[in-house]
Amino acid sequence: MGVIHRRAASEGGELRWEGVSLRAYGPENSGALHATRQILVGHDERSPHFHMRYFAVQPGGHTSLDQHAHDHGVYVLHGRARLCLAGEEHELEAGDVVYIAGNEVHQFFTLGEEPFGFLCVVPANR
Amino acid sequence: MGVIHRRAASEGGELRWEGVSLRAYGPENSGALHATRQILVGHDERSPHFHMRYFAVQPGGHTSLDQHAHDHGVYVLHGRARLCLAGEEHELEAGDVVYIAGNEVHQFFTLGEEPFGFLCVVPANR
Repeated sequence: MGVIHRRAASEGGELRWEGVSLRAYGPENSGALHATRQILVGHDERSPHFHMRYFAVQPGGHTSLDQHAHDHGVYVLHGRARLCLAGEEHELEAGDVVYIAGNEVHQFFTLGEEPFGFLCVVPANR
Repeated sequence: MGVIHRRAASEGGELRWEGVSLRAYGPENSGALHATRQILVGHDERSPHFHMRYFAVQPGGHTSLDQHAHDHGVYVLHGRARLCLAGEEHELEAGDVVYIAGNEVHQFFTLGEEPFGFLCVVPANR
């Protein structure tokens, strides 16, 4: 069955959707400052092959230093970030696309005064 | 290996990226008017599990009437559309998310004067 999640009013510069739960992201194991996660396409939508999530990281914050066997497809929706990817640094802004292959070490650091928000696609089985 | 596609200047209200080929979409079999496709994450990026594409449909245009065994995750980036999904109609705007399950009949019709642009995630093997 198809599912539509309509965009709702933003909060604190972060995107929100009707019917999508807001989850804290990472503070317990990463020191990430004020980061959130929302699952737009996942188990609730019974998506068998891929999941699509939205992450938002407030100014001064960062994602955890991650290395997974699975890959990621990232689309930047708002804000700017410094990405450390496999030992190299890149600056990202809205509209940029990143493919992170399996086992590549990666971490995003928000730049500037606006929250950094991105879509992150991953395999459903990971 | 990770890959970054930086956003480039828009053309005709459609998004563009550095290093991403622009492809015509659908006119040969759908009657779609002035629609384009760009593969942001696909075979070139050696993505084994999922692909991420961007489609843009100019005002007055539509996508083909499609029904596939595989599913789609859609994120609306700009513009508005009428979506016919499994016999029901929905109006979509920027930020809306649609999960289209396998075998659901679907078709997008651009509404208004702005091109309709969306990300579409699909399984790599389809």
